[in-house]
Amino acid sequence: MARTETVVLTNMCMVYDHDGNILVENRIDEHWGGIAFPGGHVEKGEPFVDSVIREVYEETGLTIRSPKLCGLAQFTHYEGWRYIVIFFKTDQFSGEIRSSDEGEVFWVKRSELCNYKTVPDFEQIIDFFDNDSLNEFFYDGEFNLSLL
Amino acid sequence: MARTETVVLTNMCMVYDHDGNILVENRIDEHWGGIAFPGGHVEKGEPFVDSVIREVYEETGLTIRSPKLCGLAQFTHYEGWRYIVIFFKTDQFSGEIRSSDEGEVFWVKRSELCNYKTVPDFEQIIDFFDNDSLNEFFYDGEFNLSLL
Repeated sequence: MARTETVVLTNMCMVYDHDGNILVENRIDEHWGGIAFPGGHVEKGEPFVDSVIREVYEETGLTIRSPKLCGLAQFTHYEGWRYIVIFFKTDQFSGEIRSSDEGEVFWVKRSELCNYKTVPDFEQIIDFFDNDSLNEFFYDGEFNLSLL
Repeated sequence: MARTETVVLTNMCMVYDHDGNILVENRIDEHWGGIAFPGGHVEKGEPFVDSVIREVYEETGLTIRSPKLCGLAQFTHYEGWRYIVIFFKTDQFSGEIRSSDEGEVFWVKRSELCNYKTVPDFEQIIDFFDNDSLNEFFYDGEFNLSLL
């Protein structure tokens, strides 16, 4: 028998330029609100790469190219299922930014993030995206973070 | 409501040296038998990185260090759930190889793989592992392969 389990599959993307700016979204979300990167759910049967291109477009108006897989995040929900986030990053994009119902979207200098209310651990998330020797952003059952 | 789905989560690892050798397993498996890389299921709540270190040890006897996430594979099973393989690679390992019930384990020169019966698409899997600009090894509903 196949060893199936129940999960939620999502993606998140760091769109960045080479002047120290990152594209952020001020997420309107009762569980995980504040400044974060755009992203969302992977649809049934959808390629992961397609899912992140679609989500970034829906939430920011930008069409990204060549998103690079740069890590996986996970935690176990208290109901027992696994929540997975597939991290991508890219510096290749076209179009004009526009916000969606999910939250306002704008460029911000990394050095100015301290002036904003971010989602929990966002600074560590950014460091993780920048560090090519890390693979996994893992929360254990007590929500202690390990970088693996 | 959380958008859960049913999946099978597995890993696979290319252990390699710098003399052109890769560590392979002659998998005894009615669905996916032949020469492939070691790997197996991710356990409930287990970090993905820990899962691949554990699987490589169980199947080959080697203790790997610093496995590097290098891609994701997926297909949709005919029963409707998603099968996911998390690809890692490493050239850092210690210990002596030994085989398990899952199949004989041995080093092989890449150039001599043509002499072995491999799992389907194994040559493309190896090329994928070698190509840092690729993220995803995707099979659609008719099992057509896309490299994304």
